[in-house]
Amino acid sequence: MTNISNAKIAILATDGFEKSELFEPRKQLIAAGSEITIVSLESGAIKSWDQKDWGESIDVDMTLDQANESDFDALVLPGGQMNPDLLRVEANAVDFVKAFFDAGKPIAAICHAPWLLIEADLVQGRKVTGYPSIKTDLINAGARFEDSEVVVDNGLITSRDPGDLDAFCAKIVEEVREGLHKRTRKAA
Amino acid sequence: MTNISNAKIAILATDGFEKSELFEPRKQLIAAGSEITIVSLESGAIKSWDQKDWGESIDVDMTLDQANESDFDALVLPGGQMNPDLLRVEANAVDFVKAFFDAGKPIAAICHAPWLLIEADLVQGRKVTGYPSIKTDLINAGARFEDSEVVVDNGLITSRDPGDLDAFCAKIVEEVREGLHKRTRKAA
Repeated sequence: MTNISNAKIAILATDGFEKSELFEPRKQLIAAGSEITIVSLESGAIKSWDQKDWGESIDVDMTLDQANESDFDALVLPGGQMNPDLLRVEANAVDFVKAFFDAGKPIAAICHAPWLLIEADLVQGRKVTGYPSIKTDLINAGARFEDSEVVVDNGLITSRDPGDLDAFCAKIVEEVREGLHKRTRKAA
Repeated sequence: MTNISNAKIAILATDGFEKSELFEPRKQLIAAGSEITIVSLESGAIKSWDQKDWGESIDVDMTLDQANESDFDALVLPGGQMNPDLLRVEANAVDFVKAFFDAGKPIAAICHAPWLLIEADLVQGRKVTGYPSIKTDLINAGARFEDSEVVVDNGLITSRDPGDLDAFCAKIVEEVREGLHKRTRKAA
């Protein structure tokens, strides 16, 4: 599986991201041939949340100040209860998310990460899913909530929890490949 | 300050409650003469979150299965990122919150706890405050968001963060005292 070998994918996260929801997409997207950049609020490392306690950390490759949507083909947003709650109050994080949508590039959000889609005002009238605890917030933001392992609407790829990771990652690969084809055709 | 000496107050929380947001209201409300009951999903103890990591635990006095709104004069909901996110998916927790509102008894929610008011559908058209990260969720739920240390509307007492605790606790005492007077007059 090396079908998105030219893709550059950003993963935006901060402390408290659910471990599997960053490490697993990273692994599967690298296996598919893409280059992954971990983007965060500050340089250094960010600490995962591993189910019931702090877990493994990962180095930040680029801060939001340095990151530009135009350098990437897609954006992945891991969940966790803390991580998106911390990011959604940061204007540059929300603007970064919006920029991908405005450029027509895929945004993949799992678990509690759709809170960032709410904050960027991207879910109104769109089909999305997410962790059960944020269902009401998604519906109140105008989303058409679906209880499925992965939902795609207008480039927004959403999943519910770590149990959906395989479907989530497969759909990211599919959407990124379509996006690359479209942009290649446009450039030709 | 023993002006609510006949009041029985329930504090509903689970693992991940912000330490100061349970222990400080408990201390101040006991000092005011009230009797505090810690209500949770399961018996045993619940573990606080102390700013950046797990903190002190506290024993649960009563499970939600045993708890009845009619045994209390008011309900306090501490925040923390995890605690209300875990409680809002539990139907008996949401029903417990609703029961206090329906009975006209004060409900005090701080920080991320207003998520429970959203889940119980209590904020529509009402003035509330909360932690900045949940402002959008409150507004999308129909709340009239105010950035103040404490906001009261229709028995809903809300505050933003641990810095507001003194104002929050003072307002709880005031609302409980008013509620006790009303019910005493009604019974007379």
